[in-house]
Amino acid sequence: MKDLPDDSLHVFDTTLRDGAQREGINLTVADKLTIARHLDDFGVGFIEGGWPGANPRDTEFFARARAEIDFRHAQLVAFGATRKAGVRAADDPQVQALLDSQAQVITLVAKSHDRHVELALRTTLEENLEMVRDTVSHLRAQGRRVFVDCEHFFDGYRANPGYAKQVVSAAHEAGADVVVLCDTNGGMLPAQIDAVVRTVLADTGARLGIHAQDDTGCAVANTLAAVDAGATHVQCTANGYGERVGNANLFPVVAALELKYGRTVLPAGALAEMTRISHAIAEVVNLTPSTHQPYVGVSAFAHKAGLHASAIKVDPDLYQHIDPELVGNTMRMLVSDMAGRASVELKGKELGIDLGGDRELVGRVVARVKERELAGYTYEAADASFELLLHEEVEGRPRRYFTVESWRAIVEDRPDGTHANEATVKLRAKGERIVSTAEGNGPVNALDRALRLGLERIYPQLATMELVDYKVRILEGKGGTESTTRVLVSTTDGKGEWSTVGVGENVIAASWQALDDAYAYGLLKAGVEPQE
Amino acid sequence: MKDLPDDSLHVFDTTLRDGAQREGINLTVADKLTIARHLDDFGVGFIEGGWPGANPRDTEFFARARAEIDFRHAQLVAFGATRKAGVRAADDPQVQALLDSQAQVITLVAKSHDRHVELALRTTLEENLEMVRDTVSHLRAQGRRVFVDCEHFFDGYRANPGYAKQVVSAAHEAGADVVVLCDTNGGMLPAQIDAVVRTVLADTGARLGIHAQDDTGCAVANTLAAVDAGATHVQCTANGYGERVGNANLFPVVAALELKYGRTVLPAGALAEMTRISHAIAEVVNLTPSTHQPYVGVSAFAHKAGLHASAIKVDPDLYQHIDPELVGNTMRMLVSDMAGRASVELKGKELGIDLGGDRELVGRVVARVKERELAGYTYEAADASFELLLHEEVEGRPRRYFTVESWRAIVEDRPDGTHANEATVKLRAKGERIVSTAEGNGPVNALDRALRLGLERIYPQLATMELVDYKVRILEGKGGTESTTRVLVSTTDGKGEWSTVGVGENVIAASWQALDDAYAYGLLKAGVEPQE
Repeated sequence: MKDLPDDSLHVFDTTLRDGAQREGINLTVADKLTIARHLDDFGVGFIEGGWPGANPRDTEFFARARAEIDFRHAQLVAFGATRKAGVRAADDPQVQALLDSQAQVITLVAKSHDRHVELALRTTLEENLEMVRDTVSHLRAQGRRVFVDCEHFFDGYRANPGYAKQVVSAAHEAGADVVVLCDTNGGMLPAQIDAVVRTVLADTGARLGIHAQDDTGCAVANTLAAVDAGATHVQCTANGYGERVGNANLFPVVAALELKYGRTVLPAGALAEMTRISHAIAEVVNLTPSTHQPYVGVSAFAHKAGLHASAIKVDPDLYQHIDPELVGNTMRMLVSDMAGRASVELKGKELGIDLGGDRELVGRVVARVKERELAGYTYEAADASFELLLHEEVEGRPRRYFTVESWRAIVEDRPDGTHANEATVKLRAKGERIVSTAEGNGPVNALDRALRLGLERIYPQLATMELVDYKVRILEGKGGTESTTRVLVSTTDGKGEWSTVGVGENVIAASWQALDDAYAYGLLKAGVEPQE
Repeated sequence: MKDLPDDSLHVFDTTLRDGAQREGINLTVADKLTIARHLDDFGVGFIEGGWPGANPRDTEFFARARAEIDFRHAQLVAFGATRKAGVRAADDPQVQALLDSQAQVITLVAKSHDRHVELALRTTLEENLEMVRDTVSHLRAQGRRVFVDCEHFFDGYRANPGYAKQVVSAAHEAGADVVVLCDTNGGMLPAQIDAVVRTVLADTGARLGIHAQDDTGCAVANTLAAVDAGATHVQCTANGYGERVGNANLFPVVAALELKYGRTVLPAGALAEMTRISHAIAEVVNLTPSTHQPYVGVSAFAHKAGLHASAIKVDPDLYQHIDPELVGNTMRMLVSDMAGRASVELKGKELGIDLGGDRELVGRVVARVKERELAGYTYEAADASFELLLHEEVEGRPRRYFTVESWRAIVEDRPDGTHANEATVKLRAKGERIVSTAEGNGPVNALDRALRLGLERIYPQLATMELVDYKVRILEGKGGTESTTRVLVSTTDGKGEWSTVGVGENVIAASWQALDDAYAYGLLKAGVEPQE
């Protein structure tokens, strides 16, 4: 352990436990280990890893995390429930499983809403208090640090404030280090959170934490309201993943604490990794990173309005609440129908192409973008295709590394259930006619292979390039037009990554266009001259 | 005009103006008219339609909206800037364009941050005040109601509170009905909004509004904080669309005002249309509705955790902050790896299949779902495929309407740039062998046509079914496995709509599976017995 901020304000991450409840997330043990490493890099103080004993994958996670990860900042936390009614904590196998996980910090979930005690736990209010006291004391006696999550606290407080506070006091007096007030159903607003946290703090003297769900769209604000009211422990999840709408999003909470409150809650330098880590975790859970997430979304500092674009040329600080580099993000100028000349000029500058002097050229590019976007292209998400378009307008003709005569893709499902995917391309490059056929795991893959196979002798640089992402979107036809398909392809050469777009009446035709642009751009970047 | 809530708390929508600044949105005039109709149905008080005069599409929108829409609840608002420096408002053609739009309400944007006046407007602080006074007075003299948006108000207030308040007073004294404090860069937190709104209200006596951007993830809370502090006009956009991260989302703001504050801000019955209207507007702007949006997302009342599922059987109110029907949404039980038996039983009940009595059957279904989800299937998003799986387990064998011998799809790009898409399917149904070939606008469309062509004689019900949505996702291979493709297909028979899933090593193979399920389900729903 080094570099830890002090214990005065806990950043507690529960992506691996509560975040995993999100619709569409299904984590393997390997996924959980990868996410834990990212969270430790980011520098959170606590990582709740799961519920050992209740879930075999979580038991395995704790064993492997202990063996495989050398945590630099975070402490691993096991989550579990207070003991069952009517048994001693020392005799409850679920409680024992928490100790067996060897996590030094344990979060216990306890009921604090009287109706939940009666209807879901089916025990008495007094026995529930005893379950809290007994379980906390037992774990404390075994040398563990204990946090207690009071589930449904705010609804419980509204129904029976006296009992809700008794649960807090029972946990506190039995030795829990933090008592976490949970808005489990997520129905609260900041003013309500503020009032309840202040009262409970004054009445119980316990150290308080906050766990907010986002059902009113206020989870980040609710978390900050609790901090304003005296809570010193915030529970969040990466990218706000969680059940229903989700949990308080770790990234805007931490950014607010660091940048707006001036509190140091992360190790030095970690905040500038935030955008990267947010996207990396999205990759692991296999969800597209939210483009519009505060601070870390690719759109978070993207400027589209023509009005803004012209003023940003004067001073970017006038139009951004923080410098995007503080969180590892970057300002982007969007090329789109609405953007107008100022945006195209700035975008050109970003790409190292000076358009400043030539109003007629800029006008031509703007008109071209409008026309293509009307047909379904999007240059906002395909920088490389836009750069090719710019080059074409600057140079007066397309940069062609090869010309296509025709291509064909065949997918065949055989009686034995296997598939054959075969593609043939007919091209011209360097004065030669090339006919090339390849198989692949799908029609686009077969086309990709046939294209490279045909061209690699002429352009050996293609060997370093690889498709890394592939997205398909069906664009609804409007006003009587046919629907079209848009494909976005990301390609890497091991050093950089670029995105290209293709539009066509079907997925294969659109993919072909995006591939064509992807390799043209890769060759352009590699400084290769066309050998048409 | 009928059914209007009173004027005491304005719900002001700016989807068509500020919302359209979102990355990826590009609205035609027809789109804007459709959205305006949805917003009027929802019952907002004001719809800001755009900037007539600055944008030809917006000028056309106002003309057509006047002619084509009979607004029942909303008033149409034109947006524009205060007059240019050094000319009279009466002589400024942009100001005249606002009058020409014939909108009875006009929002004027004014600078209230001293540096923006100097650097972006390039005029003096005094002239800026004069621009506000002159433009407001001129529009008032022409009988218009005027709202003034103070751009960058909160940043301006921090830099120079005296000047920021002078702008508010200038607008107020010249006859502006509401002065809207804008957090244009979106960097504020609720406590800051609260303090500034209170002070400005006390110091100027103007009626105040709030316009919040979501860069800190607090736009909804910031809007509500302003209301708490005395603002009586909230500016929002549908689904939170807007520049960068977006604007305050209309739907959670209105839901909070109606359900949490008990204020009537919509006509009777409108709140129950909220989910439908949110999704309809997403369709028009051609963005996938956010699944995790508060109140209206399909996941907003979706329960996954096994713990919750068993308690929900006791009492749904224990686990939901509101009854989802209040906002036109529904509770959903998710079938997934984590859900366990209780969820599968509830899901079966939802589908009209009672599994309650048969523990062994439920166990088999849970195991089957786990295994298939590991392979890349998702039943959360494909109810129809899940129902087929349930039937298969209940009946002991798959419900087969036909068996597939083989199929083949060919896509050919011809030298003249046109494409040929051809598919052949070989099937057995009703004891016959069927070979059928069809063309289409793409390989999946060609397969779909060949399949129907071959089967329609035996199952005429297929003629009523139509594919309405088609989504493709590439699932990254992890831990050395190959990546796979998942396809989700939505099909309608004109009465209902259902979703099916297919997974395969390529997009065509996965599509075929999803089609197979889609038609099997459609025939099952139509009460057709298999004629294998």
